[in-house]
Amino acid sequence: MRMVDLIEKKRDGKALTREEIRFIIDGYVGGEIKDYQMSAWAMAVFYQGMNAEETAELTLAMAESGEQLDLSTLEGKFVDKHSTGGVGDKTTLILAPMVAACGVPVAKMSGRGLGHTGGTIDKLSSIPGFQVELERASFLSQVERIGLAVMSQSGNLVPADKKLYALRDVTATVDSIPLIASSIMSKKIAAGAQGIVLDVKYGSGAFMKDLNAARTLAEAMVQIGNSLGRRTVALLSDMEQPLGRAVGNSLEVLEAIDTLQGQGPADLVEVCLELGAWMLVAGEKAPNAAAGIEVVREALESGAAWEKFLELVKVQGGDVQAVQEKRLAVSAERVPFPAPQAGYVQKVDARTVGNLAMVLGAGRETKESAIDLGAGVIVRKKAGKWVEAGETLLELYSADEKKMAAGLSLAREAVTLGAEPPEHKPLIAEVIL
Amino acid sequence: MRMVDLIEKKRDGKALTREEIRFIIDGYVGGEIKDYQMSAWAMAVFYQGMNAEETAELTLAMAESGEQLDLSTLEGKFVDKHSTGGVGDKTTLILAPMVAACGVPVAKMSGRGLGHTGGTIDKLSSIPGFQVELERASFLSQVERIGLAVMSQSGNLVPADKKLYALRDVTATVDSIPLIASSIMSKKIAAGAQGIVLDVKYGSGAFMKDLNAARTLAEAMVQIGNSLGRRTVALLSDMEQPLGRAVGNSLEVLEAIDTLQGQGPADLVEVCLELGAWMLVAGEKAPNAAAGIEVVREALESGAAWEKFLELVKVQGGDVQAVQEKRLAVSAERVPFPAPQAGYVQKVDARTVGNLAMVLGAGRETKESAIDLGAGVIVRKKAGKWVEAGETLLELYSADEKKMAAGLSLAREAVTLGAEPPEHKPLIAEVIL
Repeated sequence: MRMVDLIEKKRDGKALTREEIRFIIDGYVGGEIKDYQMSAWAMAVFYQGMNAEETAELTLAMAESGEQLDLSTLEGKFVDKHSTGGVGDKTTLILAPMVAACGVPVAKMSGRGLGHTGGTIDKLSSIPGFQVELERASFLSQVERIGLAVMSQSGNLVPADKKLYALRDVTATVDSIPLIASSIMSKKIAAGAQGIVLDVKYGSGAFMKDLNAARTLAEAMVQIGNSLGRRTVALLSDMEQPLGRAVGNSLEVLEAIDTLQGQGPADLVEVCLELGAWMLVAGEKAPNAAAGIEVVREALESGAAWEKFLELVKVQGGDVQAVQEKRLAVSAERVPFPAPQAGYVQKVDARTVGNLAMVLGAGRETKESAIDLGAGVIVRKKAGKWVEAGETLLELYSADEKKMAAGLSLAREAVTLGAEPPEHKPLIAEVIL
Repeated sequence: MRMVDLIEKKRDGKALTREEIRFIIDGYVGGEIKDYQMSAWAMAVFYQGMNAEETAELTLAMAESGEQLDLSTLEGKFVDKHSTGGVGDKTTLILAPMVAACGVPVAKMSGRGLGHTGGTIDKLSSIPGFQVELERASFLSQVERIGLAVMSQSGNLVPADKKLYALRDVTATVDSIPLIASSIMSKKIAAGAQGIVLDVKYGSGAFMKDLNAARTLAEAMVQIGNSLGRRTVALLSDMEQPLGRAVGNSLEVLEAIDTLQGQGPADLVEVCLELGAWMLVAGEKAPNAAAGIEVVREALESGAAWEKFLELVKVQGGDVQAVQEKRLAVSAERVPFPAPQAGYVQKVDARTVGNLAMVLGAGRETKESAIDLGAGVIVRKKAGKWVEAGETLLELYSADEKKMAAGLSLAREAVTLGAEPPEHKPLIAEVIL
C-alpha cells in the first residue's frame, strides 16, 4: 500500500477501506507517512468528505493510536459529556457532581481554554489547592471510591489527533465535518466512554456559527458513536449569548456553586438538567429524558449534587471552606458598564463577551499565555430584559487598568438595545439521537 | 501574509494575486513555506484550478526562482521547442539542426528519459564521444559560433519546479493543468526562450490520453507564453502509435540520421517539417507556416540540415565518422516478432511499444536505472499496412536473453490485426495559436 495512491483515491471521491484508513493513521503516527502527504490527504477529505463507515473507522484508528482508558471495570456505565465550546459554559462543574450523585460514574479528562472559550481545568484551578494533575491510577481509584474525578487531559491520549490537528491548523483543513467529528469522538472513545452526550453549540460564541452547520456536525458525531457501539446523543444548544451570567474562571465557579445550591440562572439550570437527563439515559439510569430530568432535578434540589461537589473538592485537595464561603480570588477592580439609553436588550453577543473576558485577562490568546483567574464579565441583563438608561448591563472585572480600559471600549459592541423585545428562541433547538 | 490564509483563499475558489503567488514560490524555495503547506495548496489548486493571470504569474515566479539563461544577445530570435513526451520521438535530433540551418539559433537544454518515453540526452549519448555536459559559457559561445548546441539540463534551472514537482509526485497532485502547464513553461522561459513551439501529444503513448485533455493543456500553455510576451504555438500530434519506426536510443539516432539524409519515414518527416515551420514563424524567419514549410524542406532536401548535424557532433566531441558510417552500438541479438495471421495492422499501441523497449533495456524504470543504449524495437509495419501471416511486425533488440524473452511475451499485446484497414487519422490534429 502506498500513501500516494490513497491520497489519489480520496482525491477522486472514492471511499477508503478500513485497512487503508488504519494504514494512514498508523503510518502517520509512526512517521512513515509524512506531513506533506497527510496535509494533501486532509485537503482531499475537505473536498470529498468521508462516508459514515470511513468516519467511524478514522475515529477508531485515532482512538487506538495511543493510551486508552479502560473503564469497563467500574460499576455503572461511564458516560462522557463533551461541549463544542462556548462562552460562560460551566456546565461540567455542575453536571459532573449532579450525575455522579445519581449513580453515573464521571471520570472527566478536560482541557485548558484557548481563545474566547474557557476550559474546565482553568476554572477548577481557581479553587485554592485543587489538584488537576492526577496520576492515572489515583484518578481511576477515585472514580471507584466516590464516583467522580476530574483531571487535566493526558499527553498521550490520541496522539494521532494531536499531530493531525496541529497540521490541519496550518494547512487550512480544519473546516471538514468528518475530520472535526472524528477528532472529538476519538478523544471520548480513548477516554473510555461507554455512552456520550454532546452539547453542540451554535451561534456567535460557538465554533459552528449556525444551526444547520451544528446539526451536520452533531449528526456525524452521533453516527460515529452509535456505529462504534457507544450510545450517543447530541443536543443543539444556543450560543448567541453567554450561558448564565458569569464569564471568567473564578466568576464561573462561583456561579456553578450558586447553581449547585439551587440559585442558578434559569438558562444554565435548564441546559444542565437536559444534559444531565440524557447522561442518565445514556448511562442506563433512566428510561428516557423526561424520567431523567426528574432524577437530576431531585439531585440538584436535595443538595446531593452540591455535597458531591464538595466531596470532589476535598478529595482533590481543594479548600472546601473557601468553596463553602465562596472565597475565590476575584479581581478587586470592578467597573459597571451602563446602558447608554433605555430599551429592550436585543442581543448580548457571546463572541464579543468572550473576547471581552479575554481582553480583561481571563483567556489565552496563545497556548503559552498566562491567565488571570479573577478576571471576567458578569452579564447583568440578558436578551429580552427591559433596561433604563444608566442601569448596569455588564460588570467588568480586571486587575489591570489598561485591560479594563480596553474592555470598556469593547463592551460597547457587546450589547444591542432596541424598542421591541427580541424574538424568543429556544435554548435547546434539537436533540439528535 | 500567512501561507495558511493563502491556502484557504485558493481552497475557497478565490484567485491569488501576483504578490501572493510570489510569496508562495519564493517562500517555498527559501524554505519558510513547508512541504506540508505546499502540498495542501497544490491539492486545493487541483480542485479549484487557476485563472490565466494566476497561471502566468506562477510560471514567471518559478522561472525566476533560480538561474536563467539570457539569450537576448544572440543574433536571431531564440525559439525553444518542447514535446510532452512520446514513444519514438526523436524530432529534436532532426529539428535542431534543421532550423539552425535556417538561421534560427538553437540552444537546447534537454532531459534524460524516464518510464516509457526516451530523452534526447540519452539518445545523443549513443554517439561515441558526444559530450552532453557543457559549461554554461561554452554552451552559449557554441550557439553564437554555429547556431546550435545541446546540453543536459542544468541543476539550478527552475529550482521551484524541481522541488514542487517532486512533492506533487508523492501527493497525488500531478494531474492539474495549471500546475503542469506552469511547470513546462517555466523551464522554457528560464532557458531564455523568446518563442516557444509545443508538441503536445495525445494517445496511448502520451501523458495526455485523449485529444480534449491535450487541447486543454495546449491552450493553457499557449496562453501563458503569449501573456508573458513569448510567441507560443502548440501542435496537437497523434501518439497512438510510435513516431517513425525506431524506439530505443541508438536505433532512434540511426533513424534521425536517415531522416536528415532524406530517407526518413513519412510520419516523422511530416511532424518535423510542421514543427520546424512553426519554429521559423515563432522565430520571425517565415511569415506563416506554409512559407516556413518550404524553407525547412529545402534545408532538409539540400543536405544543409545534415551538415549542421555533423557540425554539432564534431563541436561537441562526437565521432563524426561513426555517425557518417552509421556505426552506433546496437544490440547484436535481434529477434523478429512475426504476424500470427494475415490482416491489416489496426493499431501499434505506443504505450505497449514504449514499455516493450523499456523491458528490452532501453528505458529507465526509476531515475537511478542504467539503460542499454543499443536495445529497442523497430516497428516494421505501422497502422494501415496489410501483412501476411509470418511477416515481421516488430524487430526486438536486446543484449539480455531474459529481457528478450519478456519482450517477446509483451510484443503480442503491441500489435492488433483485423480484416479491414483502420480509419485514417491525421498526424497533427490541431494547431493552437
